[in-house]
Amino acid sequence: MKTIKPLREKKDTAILLIHCPDKQGILATVTEFLNKNRGNILYLGQHVDRKEKIFYMRVEWELERFAIPKEKIGEYFDTLIGTKLEMTWTLNFSENIPKMALFVSKMPHCLFDILARYTAGEWNVEIPIIISNHETLRPVAERFGIDFYHFPITKDNKAEQEAAELKLLKENNIDFVVLARYMQILSSDFVKNYPNKVINIHHSFLPAFAGAKPYHAAHERGVKIIGATSHYVTTDLDAGPIIEQDVTRCSHVDTVQNLIRKGRDLEKIVLSQAVYKHLQRKILVFKNRTVVFN
Amino acid sequence: MKTIKPLREKKDTAILLIHCPDKQGILATVTEFLNKNRGNILYLGQHVDRKEKIFYMRVEWELERFAIPKEKIGEYFDTLIGTKLEMTWTLNFSENIPKMALFVSKMPHCLFDILARYTAGEWNVEIPIIISNHETLRPVAERFGIDFYHFPITKDNKAEQEAAELKLLKENNIDFVVLARYMQILSSDFVKNYPNKVINIHHSFLPAFAGAKPYHAAHERGVKIIGATSHYVTTDLDAGPIIEQDVTRCSHVDTVQNLIRKGRDLEKIVLSQAVYKHLQRKILVFKNRTVVFN
Amino acid sequence: MKTIKPLREKKDTAILLIHCPDKQGILATVTEFLNKNRGNILYLGQHVDRKEKIFYMRVEWELERFAIPKEKIGEYFDTLIGTKLEMTWTLNFSENIPKMALFVSKMPHCLFDILARYTAGEWNVEIPIIISNHETLRPVAERFGIDFYHFPITKDNKAEQEAAELKLLKENNIDFVVLARYMQILSSDFVKNYPNKVINIHHSFLPAFAGAKPYHAAHERGVKIIGATSHYVTTDLDAGPIIEQDVTRCSHVDTVQNLIRKGRDLEKIVLSQAVYKHLQRKILVFKNRTVVFN
Amino acid sequence: MKTIKPLREKKDTAILLIHCPDKQGILATVTEFLNKNRGNILYLGQHVDRKEKIFYMRVEWELERFAIPKEKIGEYFDTLIGTKLEMTWTLNFSENIPKMALFVSKMPHCLFDILARYTAGEWNVEIPIIISNHETLRPVAERFGIDFYHFPITKDNKAEQEAAELKLLKENNIDFVVLARYMQILSSDFVKNYPNKVINIHHSFLPAFAGAKPYHAAHERGVKIIGATSHYVTTDLDAGPIIEQDVTRCSHVDTVQNLIRKGRDLEKIVLSQAVYKHLQRKILVFKNRTVVFN
Repeated sequence: MKTIKPLREKKDTAILLIHCPDKQGILATVTEFLNKNRGNILYLGQHVDRKEKIFYMRVEWELERFAIPKEKIGEYFDTLIGTKLEMTWTLNFSENIPKMALFVSKMPHCLFDILARYTAGEWNVEIPIIISNHETLRPVAERFGIDFYHFPITKDNKAEQEAAELKLLKENNIDFVVLARYMQILSSDFVKNYPNKVINIHHSFLPAFAGAKPYHAAHERGVKIIGATSHYVTTDLDAGPIIEQDVTRCSHVDTVQNLIRKGRDLEKIVLSQAVYKHLQRKILVFKNRTVVFN
Repeated sequence: MKTIKPLREKKDTAILLIHCPDKQGILATVTEFLNKNRGNILYLGQHVDRKEKIFYMRVEWELERFAIPKEKIGEYFDTLIGTKLEMTWTLNFSENIPKMALFVSKMPHCLFDILARYTAGEWNVEIPIIISNHETLRPVAERFGIDFYHFPITKDNKAEQEAAELKLLKENNIDFVVLARYMQILSSDFVKNYPNKVINIHHSFLPAFAGAKPYHAAHERGVKIIGATSHYVTTDLDAGPIIEQDVTRCSHVDTVQNLIRKGRDLEKIVLSQAVYKHLQRKILVFKNRTVVFN
Repeated sequence: MKTIKPLREKKDTAILLIHCPDKQGILATVTEFLNKNRGNILYLGQHVDRKEKIFYMRVEWELERFAIPKEKIGEYFDTLIGTKLEMTWTLNFSENIPKMALFVSKMPHCLFDILARYTAGEWNVEIPIIISNHETLRPVAERFGIDFYHFPITKDNKAEQEAAELKLLKENNIDFVVLARYMQILSSDFVKNYPNKVINIHHSFLPAFAGAKPYHAAHERGVKIIGATSHYVTTDLDAGPIIEQDVTRCSHVDTVQNLIRKGRDLEKIVLSQAVYKHLQRKILVFKNRTVVFN
Repeated sequence: MKTIKPLREKKDTAILLIHCPDKQGILATVTEFLNKNRGNILYLGQHVDRKEKIFYMRVEWELERFAIPKEKIGEYFDTLIGTKLEMTWTLNFSENIPKMALFVSKMPHCLFDILARYTAGEWNVEIPIIISNHETLRPVAERFGIDFYHFPITKDNKAEQEAAELKLLKENNIDFVVLARYMQILSSDFVKNYPNKVINIHHSFLPAFAGAKPYHAAHERGVKIIGATSHYVTTDLDAGPIIEQDVTRCSHVDTVQNLIRKGRDLEKIVLSQAVYKHLQRKILVFKNRTVVFN
């Protein structure tokens, strides 16, 4: 169903994400390297965490007239700059379209939101597969022409099923995973295969109401605002680095059902905003916190 | 594609929307009428505009044990109460599923959002037809199994095409129309056929930036917040009664393209929230303003 | 310093707050009682909690032509209606200006916000005394012409000091207490003297980050939104019924100091909004949740 | 009444604000200049407007070990970099405490909010004088120990009074002016003396409801959200560069008086946030828009 015209054509660019111990002159060093090699900078964001003494940077430049061949940029950068400054860095190219797998259960709202954006060409991504522990959403996947795999999970078969899922992800060269209201907890073993590459949506304003049934808990507590939180999944449940949060007002008139209904709109938007930021390589993770460039 | 189970089953209820000149005792009169006839009130909302001296009310009650037969309620209410108190009122039943027509152009985000909710059974509505001045979104309609009609509009054929559209709406017993980013202005003649029954989404925080290209205007003005506004369409462009508005922050880093992207998320949520309120018969219109019960 | 003219003069009104087991006809019964006795209703709010089967109501009417003398209203209402319907109710009159005591420590922002509103005549309240465990804010109290009492609290003298504070509150006929960033925990004994009459501001979006140093905890967790929560104080720390909450965005650029700075604006507004609602007798408490009429 | 301890002591820093035509290498050039001269960068923000091809930058560095003497930095920077790159730049030092004049009329909420922050030591500013066209707020000024000047304005004496006000501002070495709900329009002649140095708060979400009585207009239009806008004053009324905006929800229950009441909280916070940003030299103005660094 990819029938609607993509929104834009873009020239190939390089995107470098860096973090390293803060020192004088890092910014000058990196920008000089790009200038000398005729890399026209399209975007530069940097941040210094003065408390932790960490320097963060995201820089994107055009490859067209860049002096260093695309496949050599990483090597040159590391040799000339990265190693000396003890940098942790990743290099991506805008022409490389990442491959995303969706994990879903029975609720369709996040899935629909993502597939609508995908079909509309809003995102620079490919979605080869949808994985679920239920058959419920197979018709949705089929209508959007995406392969749907059913992995029913029980206490007994979990390790085995996750292994099969991982195999499927590898076969499809999946770069990252989005849990679009996937109501299963992934094992630590699974998560370790995709560090900072599994995005979840939690249906509360974390750390309030971690765990199951957060809308029931919010109603019970009588809060006046509910929220949703997208975060990278770590081995510690609901405690991974937060990417995006949003909230909406509620009141005594709202039943639990109403909170669930209002929450759906939050969840889908907050999850999709996190996926968008991830796709743009605008997120750096350090010490369980994110730096999200704008 | 209506394959996902609807969210709930509900007993049949009556919903009465009233406005009239304010006097002492209206509330007591109406509630006594329902009590005497064994109408179990599920929801009661009322509001008095002290300045205009207008009383507004929405009351919903169960029909199961109600003493007056469903088809006679309107007559009895009008005779016993409505006429005496100079009420303007409408009566609806929750079992009556309203029929909605969608008007779209080329942008799919609002259409997708509405069809996703429809398919998921979020709303108590039927969508028999989608009308467009372009072919662009036909594939979306087809995938969701909804009839799509193409009425290309030019300056010369507008009156004629609108007549054909109206005919199609009548044939399909359409109760109300939703303009899901339909980039055409409906004529006064068209609008008069559906008073307070055409819902539009304007892509700005009205009354700021009425008219075309509001995101360009917002960028030019350098605002720090952008918005979207859903409203009933009247013969006065972008000036109809406002149903819902929402906003999001922006800054100097946001290009016009970014504002358009951020705005899409606002638009679709604000429009869908307005449609939901309309479907629940929670909106009263008086003097170009809405009373929206919660 | 009460030199700025109060904003308004109002006629005397009666305000009745009710909750009781839900039954058919409560609303009709109460409104009929008022109508028959020529009580012109200025405001009526009601809410039914269908799950708990509790009916809540707030009604305000003019006393001018009301048939029952002011001092007899409570008795008549209870005899004719309240007892039969098992109502818990409170009756207040707008002419009765409540007396509020402020408890502060060292931070002045909430204190200033409240005293500014007080001086400007925004609120219908008297503030005879300010109590603190530190001398820091005495100059502020003095400039606004309000008596300031210093009760330094240590582990050893707490019971004794609280007893002295309670004595002072009684002597000044204090109706309710506002903890305007009072950094001490009140004992259960103290709180029991003012049930649902001590309003606190907690500097986080409760239940997230209850306890001390919430901004440090929020920074550590890397949240993207911070909040503040006003609530009635109960014997269970930070767990009392929530009155109002608000939030503001933050990001990786915000240091703890920045969060504290941003938080101050939230705290003072959220606390003052709660006090305003309380002064208007718009809040009902039931089962650790509030019904806040609008 | 400056009795409460200021919040912090800071080392002296230099703050450079730059805008110039965008070219490759500007960032590298500026950061290299600072690095070579041992200027430890505390904060760097930059933004490129790709459409207008303008480069914006704010950089703050410690002066302690900086090789160029404080009083020579401007000259050196201009000679070595500024002139070549056609920069418009301003240089400030954190030790220089700016002098602010407040203009008020009758409404005290913004005045109180500013004086509370001033007294609490929240801001690095001096407020030598308050100017008003009414005597109403003199007691407030006196309690906070600030000189209050009454300049009643009529159609006939406006030019003369403004001249006297300007004279007073010059005598007090006022750096910038804050209109804290000053209900007079300043003449173009006045404004030209303080370009981008007069901050106003408009009580609406500009450009919606420019001009007088915006809350009445908002109520009439039936909006669901109201706002406030702080902006630099230009010769074009309510059309100057926007610094900060915020909004709050309203509904059909809100009278004009309620909107005014809710609006006060918005106005004071939005104005104070703008003043704070201005004091931190975080705002650049170009072509009637602001770049506000975070």
